[in-house]
Amino acid sequence: MVFESSCVPQSPQHAFEVIQAMVQRTPVMASASLNVALGTELWFKCEHLQHTGSFKYRGASYAVSQLPDDCPGVATHSSGNHGAALAAAASTQGLTADVVMPSNAVQCKIDAVRRYGGRVHFCAPTQDAREHGLARLVKRGLTPIPPYDHDHIILGQSTIGTELLDEHEDLDVIVAPIGGGGMLAGVTLAAQQHHRSVRVIGAEPAAADDAARSLAEGRRVQTHQPNTIADGLRALIGIRNFNILHAHQCSILTVSEAQILTAMATLWTDLKQIVEPSGAVALAAIMNNPESFKDLKVGVVLSGGNLDMDPVFEPIRNLAAS
Amino acid sequence: MVFESSCVPQSPQHAFEVIQAMVQRTPVMASASLNVALGTELWFKCEHLQHTGSFKYRGASYAVSQLPDDCPGVATHSSGNHGAALAAAASTQGLTADVVMPSNAVQCKIDAVRRYGGRVHFCAPTQDAREHGLARLVKRGLTPIPPYDHDHIILGQSTIGTELLDEHEDLDVIVAPIGGGGMLAGVTLAAQQHHRSVRVIGAEPAAADDAARSLAEGRRVQTHQPNTIADGLRALIGIRNFNILHAHQCSILTVSEAQILTAMATLWTDLKQIVEPSGAVALAAIMNNPESFKDLKVGVVLSGGNLDMDPVFEPIRNLAAS
Repeated sequence: MVFESSCVPQSPQHAFEVIQAMVQRTPVMASASLNVALGTELWFKCEHLQHTGSFKYRGASYAVSQLPDDCPGVATHSSGNHGAALAAAASTQGLTADVVMPSNAVQCKIDAVRRYGGRVHFCAPTQDAREHGLARLVKRGLTPIPPYDHDHIILGQSTIGTELLDEHEDLDVIVAPIGGGGMLAGVTLAAQQHHRSVRVIGAEPAAADDAARSLAEGRRVQTHQPNTIADGLRALIGIRNFNILHAHQCSILTVSEAQILTAMATLWTDLKQIVEPSGAVALAAIMNNPESFKDLKVGVVLSGGNLDMDPVFEPIRNLAAS
Repeated sequence: MVFESSCVPQSPQHAFEVIQAMVQRTPVMASASLNVALGTELWFKCEHLQHTGSFKYRGASYAVSQLPDDCPGVATHSSGNHGAALAAAASTQGLTADVVMPSNAVQCKIDAVRRYGGRVHFCAPTQDAREHGLARLVKRGLTPIPPYDHDHIILGQSTIGTELLDEHEDLDVIVAPIGGGGMLAGVTLAAQQHHRSVRVIGAEPAAADDAARSLAEGRRVQTHQPNTIADGLRALIGIRNFNILHAHQCSILTVSEAQILTAMATLWTDLKQIVEPSGAVALAAIMNNPESFKDLKVGVVLSGGNLDMDPVFEPIRNLAAS
């Protein structure tokens, strides 16, 4: 299958121009000690510092900006970050947002959707239940803005790559996590428009490896039983997303749950940045394959920073009380 | 007592010019949601992102830069951050660093001193034991660079204020934590040189309130039994530091242990920045006195980000295993 450019009516550049005043131009950080330890040069794109705490606000902002004036309100399904981002972006236009969330969603992400004004509808934690839940809302007249399998969402997320390559034009490779593939497809499109060759690699939990299997088999797999702490990467790769990644022969590295946690701990300790498990998967892939990245300049997307912090603070509170 | 400018032979501007190529120009962050919640405009100076993870690298760098060529090596006492910073700064000049540390120092800070090449000497966790330990090293011929009661250290720390006011020249007030007073005295000197009036307020744990008591009594108190989770703020205010703060009529706000932890949790959750307990004390003072900061533009120094992360990660590891 070949990616048809007609799938993407507007360009990454258009998305960048439309949303640059709406989104945070997130900083790019580096850690000298980590670079020495890994023998590479890593540049971390800090999307956990994006509005609503994840890159999802980019896609949501672009998608909402492209809605017709008479849109009655938007609806989506989401593990949380896209739901919160869509609720926040919709509210800037005075639109309602209805969000179907799996019953095992992280509590702080449920709270965030509501805090940004979204209405939450719970469903079973399966891909089918999420899509059926959204279909029901669409039947009621709401405009669907799904979390990744959507042209405007992909283009909105592409601005991560545009900004990263604008500041670090000599990157050899960009590593980004993949769940549904909105970000990875977007970054791939942005890299394609860059004047200099830059590879894009996806990083995926082995316990949710639908993208790796799909790209290996050359067709989008349907069997998918994700069981990973990286709650933002449990979705099945989307159709548009698969088509873009397949056409560009994007490769995927998978990582274990332990590797995700080690990478997250490294980000918290060395970079002093609170990144959620999903956001640490790209670094996990690099730490697990140091030889592949040796002496390269690598862009690493830290995709989000939303996780339940209560269990984290408990031992610190005990420390204070002791 | 009046502050004599002859105490400080060089100026904050000199320190800034000397060390700007050595230290990190740390970013200044903001949180829209926190500003709304507190009804103020906070600008966080991110010294937890400084080399060695705390502002201490500024003072250490300036002090080392002013050493004579025949310096045989440096020595200090430190709860940890100054020790690590001095070891790192000394190593850039090929100098050894010997560091007296209290036996209850945080493990990651002990590790850091050693990682940067410093030699650790443990002592009892009292001010006397720390100073006696340092005196012994000085008798062996080493050059003392104490953590705060030192002109070059104070001037090095002043560059925090210089940078903050360079980027946000219309700040009404800067709030910074106080332990020995190196940073607070330095920021006070920087604010004094600013073309526009800016107040400087210290923030101190109530459980280590020697600075508040000293400034209230108009003389440096000697009784001091600190018992706070903010391990970087347990030191007794220094003589030079007291003199500067007293001469400038600096005011101090004290906060409880619970308030420190709440502020730290807020920084981790809202700003997504790993700040250590000592580094959260300035925000704690603001959160505890919202009326005093209402509608003001406030610089807030996040002084460091070094804490033992193992207990923090344990519940996350359990989450992954479950």
